[in-house]
Amino acid sequence: MSLGEIFLWELMGTAALTLLGCGVVANVALRNTLGHNGGWLLVNFGWGFAVFVGASIAAPTKAHLNPAVTLGLAMDGQVPWSQVPTYIAAQLVGGALGAGLCWATYKLQFDTHDDPANTLGVFATAPTVRNAPWNLVTEIIGTFVLVLWIILSPQARPGEHVGVPEFGNSALGYAAVAFVVISIGSSLGGPTGYAINPARDLGPRVAYALLPIRGKGSADWGYAWIPIVGPVIGGVLAGALAQILPVT
Amino acid sequence: MSLGEIFLWELMGTAALTLLGCGVVANVALRNTLGHNGGWLLVNFGWGFAVFVGASIAAPTKAHLNPAVTLGLAMDGQVPWSQVPTYIAAQLVGGALGAGLCWATYKLQFDTHDDPANTLGVFATAPTVRNAPWNLVTEIIGTFVLVLWIILSPQARPGEHVGVPEFGNSALGYAAVAFVVISIGSSLGGPTGYAINPARDLGPRVAYALLPIRGKGSADWGYAWIPIVGPVIGGVLAGALAQILPVT
Amino acid sequence: MSLGEIFLWELMGTAALTLLGCGVVANVALRNTLGHNGGWLLVNFGWGFAVFVGASIAAPTKAHLNPAVTLGLAMDGQVPWSQVPTYIAAQLVGGALGAGLCWATYKLQFDTHDDPANTLGVFATAPTVRNAPWNLVTEIIGTFVLVLWIILSPQARPGEHVGVPEFGNSALGYAAVAFVVISIGSSLGGPTGYAINPARDLGPRVAYALLPIRGKGSADWGYAWIPIVGPVIGGVLAGALAQILPVT
Amino acid sequence: MSLGEIFLWELMGTAALTLLGCGVVANVALRNTLGHNGGWLLVNFGWGFAVFVGASIAAPTKAHLNPAVTLGLAMDGQVPWSQVPTYIAAQLVGGALGAGLCWATYKLQFDTHDDPANTLGVFATAPTVRNAPWNLVTEIIGTFVLVLWIILSPQARPGEHVGVPEFGNSALGYAAVAFVVISIGSSLGGPTGYAINPARDLGPRVAYALLPIRGKGSADWGYAWIPIVGPVIGGVLAGALAQILPVT
Repeated sequence: MSLGEIFLWELMGTAALTLLGCGVVANVALRNTLGHNGGWLLVNFGWGFAVFVGASIAAPTKAHLNPAVTLGLAMDGQVPWSQVPTYIAAQLVGGALGAGLCWATYKLQFDTHDDPANTLGVFATAPTVRNAPWNLVTEIIGTFVLVLWIILSPQARPGEHVGVPEFGNSALGYAAVAFVVISIGSSLGGPTGYAINPARDLGPRVAYALLPIRGKGSADWGYAWIPIVGPVIGGVLAGALAQILPVT
Repeated sequence: MSLGEIFLWELMGTAALTLLGCGVVANVALRNTLGHNGGWLLVNFGWGFAVFVGASIAAPTKAHLNPAVTLGLAMDGQVPWSQVPTYIAAQLVGGALGAGLCWATYKLQFDTHDDPANTLGVFATAPTVRNAPWNLVTEIIGTFVLVLWIILSPQARPGEHVGVPEFGNSALGYAAVAFVVISIGSSLGGPTGYAINPARDLGPRVAYALLPIRGKGSADWGYAWIPIVGPVIGGVLAGALAQILPVT
Repeated sequence: MSLGEIFLWELMGTAALTLLGCGVVANVALRNTLGHNGGWLLVNFGWGFAVFVGASIAAPTKAHLNPAVTLGLAMDGQVPWSQVPTYIAAQLVGGALGAGLCWATYKLQFDTHDDPANTLGVFATAPTVRNAPWNLVTEIIGTFVLVLWIILSPQARPGEHVGVPEFGNSALGYAAVAFVVISIGSSLGGPTGYAINPARDLGPRVAYALLPIRGKGSADWGYAWIPIVGPVIGGVLAGALAQILPVT
Repeated sequence: MSLGEIFLWELMGTAALTLLGCGVVANVALRNTLGHNGGWLLVNFGWGFAVFVGASIAAPTKAHLNPAVTLGLAMDGQVPWSQVPTYIAAQLVGGALGAGLCWATYKLQFDTHDDPANTLGVFATAPTVRNAPWNLVTEIIGTFVLVLWIILSPQARPGEHVGVPEFGNSALGYAAVAFVVISIGSSLGGPTGYAINPARDLGPRVAYALLPIRGKGSADWGYAWIPIVGPVIGGVLAGALAQILPVT
C-alpha cells in the first residue's frame, strides 16, 4: 500500500474517531444538549463505538488510529518503521480535523454554554488530581493494556484460538477493540480521562487553540506532554513485553 | 426482486424502526412509564437496537430503512435509480405506520401525561437551539458518517477485510449498523436529536398530525424540512466522496 | 429428541431466565442491594442477557423459553403440535423454579426491605396505568415484534442473508435475541413491564404466592390473565402473518 | 502446554481481570474520579469487559481466570487434576498483582479520598446484609450459573449448535462470557457484590492488606472465606450436574 493511501485512510479513520469521541463529551458536558449530564457510561460507549466506526473506515491500513499502537506494532515487527511517520502524521492531522467537525456539530451549544472558558475538556484530557508522575503512570497502564491486547488478540494469534478463522481485520475485530476501549475507559479512565492515544489528545488540543470558539479558555499546554509521553511509553512497553512472551 | 416486495419489506422494516425508536422516547419522556427519565444512553440503545430489529426484518431488500441511505447507495451505484422511489415511499409509509403503533402502545401514557401539548418529541426531532443553518450542519455531519460507514463497511469491501467471509447482510452486519447508530446518537445527537433519516422524522411527524392524541400540540412544520434536507445532503455527499476514494 | 429431554432443557433454560430476570428487578427495586435505583437500562440489560444465558443452556431444544414463541413457531410449522404441551409445561415449571432461586439469592434483601407488601414487582409484571384493553394492546404489540423477529430472523431465512453460514442456534443467534429483548424492553416496556412471555409472568407469580416471603402482599391475580392472553395473541398473530409473507 | 506457560498466561489474564475490575469500582467509588457515582450498570460493564480483556490475553490456557471454573472443568473432565494447582496459584498471584496495578492507577484518588478507611470495597467484596449462610447461598447460585453456562456453552457442545463452526476459544466466545458476567452482576450481584471467583476476591484482599494505601481500614478477614467457599461449592455443583445431564 502506498504511503498516500496510508495517509488517507488513517486520516479519515482518526477524524471519525475524534469527531465521535469529542462529540460524546460535548453532548455530556455542554448545557444545551440532549445528552447533558448523561454519565460516564455514555462517555465510555461513545468513545468505544467511535473506535468501532473509525476502525471500520480505516480497514485498509489495519486501523491503527493511534501513534502508541503504531509504535507498539512496529516494536513487535508488524509494521515497517519506514511507514511509521506517515501513520503518525495522518493520525495527528485527522485528530485535529475530527475535532473541528465536532465543533461545527456543536457550534450552537458552544455559543450558548454557560461556562465557555471551561470547554477544553470536550477536546483534550485533563487529570482530576494534577501530579505529573502519577498521571503518567495512569496513562502508561491504560495504554499498555490497550496495546498488549491488540498484540495478543485473536487476529494476531490465530493458532491459539481454535475453531474459527481469524477475524482480526473485520467488524468483529473492531467490535472487540471497541469493547477493550470501553473497558479501559470504565476502569482506568477515572483519573486522567484516558487519552491512551497521543493523536486523540494533541490533535483536538491544537484544534481548540486554533478554532474561533466563543469565550474559550486556555489549551493547558503544561499538561499536553503527559498524554503524549504516557501512551508512547505504554505502547512501547507492551511491544517490548510481546517480544519475550512465548507467543506461538 | 419485484417493486412490490421491496415496498413490503422496507415498509415492515421501517415500521419496526419507528415503533421501537419512537417507543423508547415515549418511555423516557412520558410520565407514567417504567423508563421515565431513563437517560440519553437508554434512548441511544433504544434507537440503535430498533435499527437492528428493523434491519433483520428487511433483510431481503438489504434494509435501507432510510431515504438518505437509499440515495447514497444509488449515488455509489449499488441500487438502480428506478427502484429509489419505491424504497422511499415504503420508508415514509412505514415510518408513519410504526409511529401509529407506538401511539397505540403508549395510549394510556399519552392520555395521562401532564404536558400533553409537548409530546411531539416522541415522534419527531427538534433542535435544542433553533438555527436553520447550524441545525442543517449537524444533521449533514451525522448522516454523512452513517452513510459513509455503510458504503465503506466490511460488507462493501470484503477484499479489505481479511480472514472471514463477508457478513454484511447478516445479524452481525445489523449489529454493526446498530453500533454505528448508537455511536452517532451518543456523539452527534445532542443538538438536534439525530434524525439522520427523513423517513424517521417525516413519517412520525405526519402520524402526530393525524392521530387523535389527547391534547396534542403543534407538529412544528417550520422545522420539518431540516431533518429531510440535512440527511439527504449528508447521504449524497457520502455517496459522492465514495466515488473518488481508492476503494478496492 | 424425546419429550423428556425437551422438558429438561426448557425447564433449565426458563429457570435461568427468570432467576436472572427477576434478579435484576430485585437488585433495582429492593433497598439493601448494590444496584438499588440502578435505572431502566440496567433492567433491560439484565433481562436481555438473562435470555442470552437461558437460551445458551436450552440450545438442544432451540431455546423457546416462552409459550408465545412455541405457539408462533407451531403456527409457522417449525414445531410439531404434539410437542407444544411439553414445551409449555416445562416453561411454566422452570419459570416458577427460577423465581424461587431469585428469592433465595435475595432472601436477606426481602427480609429487610422497607415496603415488603410491595414486592410482587420483582416477580410479576404490572401496568403503570391499569386498563385491560390497552394493557393487552401493549403486550400484543411487544410479543408480536419478538415472535415476528424470531420467525424472520437470519437463522430462519439463510437464503436471504448472504455471505455467512446460518448461525441461528449459536451464541451469535442468542446475542441477537438478547438485543431484540433489550430493544423491546427499552422501547415497548414502559406501560406494562413487557411480560411478552406467559411463563415469565405466571411462573414467578405462582412462586410469589407460594414462597414464605416476609410481609408479602397480593399476587394481583386480577391482572394475571393479561400477560398470558396478550403474548399468546401476539405470538399467534406473528405466526399467522408469516404464513402470508413471501419468505423464501 | 507446560505448567510454566499455564502459570504465565493465567497470571497475566487474571491480573488484567482484577486491574480492570477493581479499576471500575475505584472509578465509581472514589471521590476524585470522572466516573464517580457512575452507577451499577457501569460497574457491571466494567467487570464484564474486564473478563473479555483477561480472557483474550489468556487464550492459550483457555482463560479460566477463576479457581471455581478450573474446579468445575476438572470435575467435568476437561482439565487434568495435575494442572489444577498451577492454574489456581497463578490466578491468586495474578489477582493480587492486578489489584496492585489498580492501586497505582488510582494512587492520587486513594490519597485524596474523603473516607480512606472505607476503601476495601475497591478490592474485595462485602455483603449489604451480613449473614454467612445466606451470603453463601448468593455466591453459590451466582457461581453455579457461571460455571454451568461455561460447561454447557456453545464451545463445549458444538453438536448442539448448528450451522457455524465452534467459536469457543475466540473473541466471540470471550464476548459471550462477558455477557454472562454482566448478566450475573446485574441480576445476582446485588446482595454480595458477586465475587463468583475466589481469586478475584482473595488476591485483591491480600493486596489491600499489603499495599501502603493512605489511611486504609480493615481487610475484613472475617468475611473472606465466603467468596472462597461459595464459588468453590457453586463451581463443583455445576460440574457435578453436568455429569448427569444428557449432553451430546
